[in-house]
Amino acid sequence: MMERPPFNAAEALTAADLTLSWSALQNEERVQAYRRLRREEAEDFFEGLPTADQAALLAGLTKGERRLWIRLLAPDDVADLLLEVSPADQAELLSLLDEPTRREVIALLAYAEDEAGGLMSPWFARVRPEATVDQAISYLKRQARDHLETIYYGYVLDAEQRLRGVVSLRQLMIAPGDRRVSDVMKTDVVSVNEDADQEAVARTFAEHDLVAIPVVDSEGRMKGIVTADDIVDVVEEEATEDIQKLGGMQALDAPYLRTPISRMLGKRAGWLSALFVGELLTATAMGYYEHEIARAVVLALFVPLIISSGGNSGSQATTLVIRAMALGEIRLADFWRVSRRELASGLALGGILGTIGFARVIAWEKLFGAYGPHYTLLALAVAISLVGVVTWGTMAGALLPFVLRALGFDPASASAPFVATLVDVSGLVIYFSVAELLLRGVLL
Amino acid sequence: MMERPPFNAAEALTAADLTLSWSALQNEERVQAYRRLRREEAEDFFEGLPTADQAALLAGLTKGERRLWIRLLAPDDVADLLLEVSPADQAELLSLLDEPTRREVIALLAYAEDEAGGLMSPWFARVRPEATVDQAISYLKRQARDHLETIYYGYVLDAEQRLRGVVSLRQLMIAPGDRRVSDVMKTDVVSVNEDADQEAVARTFAEHDLVAIPVVDSEGRMKGIVTADDIVDVVEEEATEDIQKLGGMQALDAPYLRTPISRMLGKRAGWLSALFVGELLTATAMGYYEHEIARAVVLALFVPLIISSGGNSGSQATTLVIRAMALGEIRLADFWRVSRRELASGLALGGILGTIGFARVIAWEKLFGAYGPHYTLLALAVAISLVGVVTWGTMAGALLPFVLRALGFDPASASAPFVATLVDVSGLVIYFSVAELLLRGVLL
Repeated sequence: MMERPPFNAAEALTAADLTLSWSALQNEERVQAYRRLRREEAEDFFEGLPTADQAALLAGLTKGERRLWIRLLAPDDVADLLLEVSPADQAELLSLLDEPTRREVIALLAYAEDEAGGLMSPWFARVRPEATVDQAISYLKRQARDHLETIYYGYVLDAEQRLRGVVSLRQLMIAPGDRRVSDVMKTDVVSVNEDADQEAVARTFAEHDLVAIPVVDSEGRMKGIVTADDIVDVVEEEATEDIQKLGGMQALDAPYLRTPISRMLGKRAGWLSALFVGELLTATAMGYYEHEIARAVVLALFVPLIISSGGNSGSQATTLVIRAMALGEIRLADFWRVSRRELASGLALGGILGTIGFARVIAWEKLFGAYGPHYTLLALAVAISLVGVVTWGTMAGALLPFVLRALGFDPASASAPFVATLVDVSGLVIYFSVAELLLRGVLL
Repeated sequence: MMERPPFNAAEALTAADLTLSWSALQNEERVQAYRRLRREEAEDFFEGLPTADQAALLAGLTKGERRLWIRLLAPDDVADLLLEVSPADQAELLSLLDEPTRREVIALLAYAEDEAGGLMSPWFARVRPEATVDQAISYLKRQARDHLETIYYGYVLDAEQRLRGVVSLRQLMIAPGDRRVSDVMKTDVVSVNEDADQEAVARTFAEHDLVAIPVVDSEGRMKGIVTADDIVDVVEEEATEDIQKLGGMQALDAPYLRTPISRMLGKRAGWLSALFVGELLTATAMGYYEHEIARAVVLALFVPLIISSGGNSGSQATTLVIRAMALGEIRLADFWRVSRRELASGLALGGILGTIGFARVIAWEKLFGAYGPHYTLLALAVAISLVGVVTWGTMAGALLPFVLRALGFDPASASAPFVATLVDVSGLVIYFSVAELLLRGVLL
């Protein structure tokens, strides 16, 4: 028997097969394989692809195919796709849409991608308040034939398009058919403004356990809906941004392996250089204590240990506080509460590390005679410095996000490496000050 | 005029008011305020509360009120709530449920909280394949009167309860009323196994843009559905866990301000102490180079700068790789691709920092005469060490998550502080080795 070539045109191909091999295929192979899916499978597959892959796939298809597939997408998804391609391709793809969709897509492109307006779909079911329940159901049913993303909520708008209430298909189905929509609708509707940041939209979603949320302008006129499946993507995206910032870099805007290396270096080199310049202060601080080090070289041995302990404890604290802020668990008003908690934590953690550090110096002296006659004072200096540095690192890490937020910056900029750098310099000052106090006239 | 006491019983209170003041209230005040909400508002408010707050609120209510409110919740939400209370309270609350719900809740309690089975609701709409479209619609309509979390999908089960297909209410509404459900249903249903990890469930959700996903057992029998609003919570929770691990600690299981300080210290002290013990190796390494430092104290001045640069670059790389792994963008098979990218990145970033470091040493010598006659060699030693340390830090940070995952550990354990500690010790060895090579016979 002969080995079959991959993707033999005569062979049946399922969407599941293609999903498995997708990441390993070149774009041309993707196009060929995609053409061999059954129409129904191809639709689902195409709609489920990441936006960048949709754009690349479209680029490999004929114009007729492009028209077919792009018309499958909801306007908000088309708008996202257009943001991935060149202006020339944007114009060409726009020309493939039918007139009303094109106008909707152009309106959506005016919103920033991370605003409620940029997330929303302009397709939603409008219901008049004076309609009967039966009329509303049959209207939703008719709308279901078209492109509606969800028909499970009817939004009740007045003559000025202002949102007056919402009624779920479920409520309609259990209400008597001759009641008015205005009698069965819910009037305290949770909605978001079109300028709302996507993080705020996601928060509202999570708090209210919704399937879709209406988007209104500043005059209360309804513009569209944001659906739960978009929110899952937003939540992942926001978490990724925060994580990358916490790691001490600018957030990448695309998946790791799809980001060109030059662009990724740009996102990393800026922060890394800034941190490095800050860290140069440690060389200045160390230079200031050069004579002390010359007289007692043993002091230098514990420098990496002490500054990294400050950095690690600061990293813990800043991570906790930044995440809690992102989730809305901590507000600016909690400043004093967090201060008290972290002061207590810092002292406790510093006490633990100080004890281990003290024991280490004593043990090495007893085992190897490593630190000379004044080893007890040295051990004490190390231990006290650790308490001070860990407490200071913990407080700095916990409170810096508050300061940044109060100044209007993103608290996530207080990345772990940023806090570590801040604490390194001050850690050196704490250590050498404690050492001078304890060892003056003995070692120094 | 007198100041009004907070929450005057005669004053109207809305759910929005209560949400705003909620975090500032004691549980007793919460109970009082809650009782003053209109019934409809109270229902929404209660369902939207975090599970722990629901449990606390119930504890403050009378038995009659408890029965009323707990029966409002879906079985999966009741099961989550029961996990928050003592076994005695569990038994009492279970006794307040009606018999079928109680049985469902007990079945759900058998699943781990972070499995598909623990997330799912056992309430879903079952449809027989041989039913007509009209029969199916009127059946869904009848089920909508009961507690169903969603009636927007009908799940088509055979006599053995095996999932054969799915049909959306929307599809039913646009299909001719006398067609069979088996003719209009979608047969390639995306489902998850009841043992699937919640992270895997969330991934499936995001990939397929679903509103609800069916959960089946190993024989394909349908057990329940997981809905999108639960997934938003899961995605946030998983991101929080990863972020806290990246910050160098165990994940807290509860919001920051609700975690008792003793428990939080436990989550932090373990990792911090482990990192500290690892970091003690830096004192050993420094001790090994004590004679070099004594002969050329100037070498010690750059120790914090060099090791922190390794730590910061490692933190960037490990953060990027861990997040990309969590999102499924990077697999084990991408090891070599990531290695090549990070080797190139590390060399480039090291080159940038090395250049800045070189310039700093030369500049300080020219300005302050800080480093003596051999300052060029010293500058060179610092620069070359920086290239080496940053490249090594970047590679270690990027590849450690691969090693951990290949060994079956959580890659997120390769936290930024863990990588920094690893790189600190090796950074010292790199720096002093380079210095020995360049400065032997000159400064050393």
